Amino acid sequence: MFLIETFNLVAVFVFAISASLSAIKRKFDLFGISFVAFVTSVGGGTVRDILLGDFPVSWMKNGNFAYSIICGILISFIFTNKLNGFKKTFFWFDTIGIGVSTIIGTYKAIEYGLNFPLCVLFGVMSSIFGGIIRDTLCNDVPLVFRKEIYATACIMGSVCFQFLNFLHIEIVISMPIAIVITIMIRFISIKYNLKLPNLNYKLKGKINV
Amino acid sequence: MFLIETFNLVAVFVFAISASLSAIKRKFDLFGISFVAFVTSVGGGTVRDILLGDFPVSWMKNGNFAYSIICGILISFIFTNKLNGFKKTFFWFDTIGIGVSTIIGTYKAIEYGLNFPLCVLFGVMSSIFGGIIRDTLCNDVPLVFRKEIYATACIMGSVCFQFLNFLHIEIVISMPIAIVITIMIRFISIKYNLKLPNLNYKLKGKINV
Amino acid sequence: MFLIETFNLVAVFVFAISASLSAIKRKFDLFGISFVAFVTSVGGGTVRDILLGDFPVSWMKNGNFAYSIICGILISFIFTNKLNGFKKTFFWFDTIGIGVSTIIGTYKAIEYGLNFPLCVLFGVMSSIFGGIIRDTLCNDVPLVFRKEIYATACIMGSVCFQFLNFLHIEIVISMPIAIVITIMIRFISIKYNLKLPNLNYKLKGKINV
Repeated sequence: MFLIETFNLVAVFVFAISASLSAIKRKFDLFGISFVAFVTSVGGGTVRDILLGDFPVSWMKNGNFAYSIICGILISFIFTNKLNGFKKTFFWFDTIGIGVSTIIGTYKAIEYGLNFPLCVLFGVMSSIFGGIIRDTLCNDVPLVFRKEIYATACIMGSVCFQFLNFLHIEIVISMPIAIVITIMIRFISIKYNLKLPNLNYKLKGKINV
Repeated sequence: MFLIETFNLVAVFVFAISASLSAIKRKFDLFGISFVAFVTSVGGGTVRDILLGDFPVSWMKNGNFAYSIICGILISFIFTNKLNGFKKTFFWFDTIGIGVSTIIGTYKAIEYGLNFPLCVLFGVMSSIFGGIIRDTLCNDVPLVFRKEIYATACIMGSVCFQFLNFLHIEIVISMPIAIVITIMIRFISIKYNLKLPNLNYKLKGKINV
Repeated sequence: MFLIETFNLVAVFVFAISASLSAIKRKFDLFGISFVAFVTSVGGGTVRDILLGDFPVSWMKNGNFAYSIICGILISFIFTNKLNGFKKTFFWFDTIGIGVSTIIGTYKAIEYGLNFPLCVLFGVMSSIFGGIIRDTLCNDVPLVFRKEIYATACIMGSVCFQFLNFLHIEIVISMPIAIVITIMIRFISIKYNLKLPNLNYKLKGKINV
């Protein structure tokens, strides 16, 4: 599990950088930036652990998470204007982070004996809740609801992982496979601009809800 | 408790439909719609269970909740344009759902030994928190804060239930009575357009807070 | 700990008043006002207790919190137009509340064995999360992210408290000292209009995140 721990720290680190940049753009002060970075990077795992009743939540058990986030914030401060150049690098880190979070979330839900759709939900939640909290705090409609970025990849990855488990494949093999599948699906869906339908075509008349 | 379980599933199902429609109106994609539907329908009960420290939260103990929500979402997708016609039916389902949630929330708080105002709070919270989360995610000011829809009914229903308990009336009798009272109050307050004052008349000068 | 309990009730009471005024300004109805007041005044402590896994959360263990909030709301209703005159008094109550919340939050985190940056985080979180939830519910960007109000004071106070603990100074002495330091820093930073930089000067080009 050492590899996963490391991946997880990298994911938190990269999430912290992308959240910091988003907060800097909105002219938050140093404190606002740090807070948003923190909440975004641990948000998904926190919601997951709270719902499962696994206390204290993961980033409190392991102090390295806090240091990893602080590093991410500091790097954003220092390289504010240079980070745009690394977009491709970030995309990959981000995608790896999402892949790992999804599979860890699914794994934890399976361990707690949840049923199939709930396990998928926990996988997705672990990887996207941070971003939803970030967008809500920044007073935006969460991006993930409108522009399909990684939800589909998370769902497919989680389903694959559960299928591999169903076949009784060892966790040390099934986990990396599912992570790679999640990453590939996301890569392909961004490359070919695939997205989920938004049902606009059905909205001929106004819905009065 | 079988009847209540059933009512609860119906409530979750109907909440999922109304949330889906609200998300479709905002042009969210399939994932956004599902996520909003899910959070809205289980939000109230989740906050209640987390605050009481009752883990895992109720919708995770019983897998039927997940299926009930999925059905609600699917029905919204299929009948997007036809659901407006069922408005009256939905109003009744919704009201039943709210009544049941309120009384279950109050009941759980009483069981945990909370005092009178906190029990009322838990009753109200269980039935409205889902909607508040939905409106926050959709970047609206929660509707329930401005237009009195069901808060008063929930409060009155919760007070009645606690009063009946105080008189040592059996739970199998007091619970249905309180649920019916909650439903009737909401029905009457909508029919005669009753609402709480918003103190506008007092705001002669600008408040600088 | 009796003094701290009392301070805590005063803090909750004053937070309830300031939140009520903010909700009245936004034309929420009686229910919306009460709800926002409640969430704002207990929000910080609730998030702290949930993350630490300390159930039931503090305001549920002690019924006086509920009564304290109800008093705050009632006073806001009655004196809506007169409260502006008390601004200075409120500033002091508010600052005392923030000082106490910060140190109690830090203290609880130390007791749970968290590391240095996490203890600072818990101190800050306990005092500001309520306001963040309030602003999010009211559909604003949280004020604390843009206009440095008390974040710095909380951080410094929490650091001082941990330093005093590190020197093995008795809690009955170190706690009041750290509270007073937090209060003084906030007073000075408001008086001389000190604030954290927002990195605007670095944003020469557009950041594409």
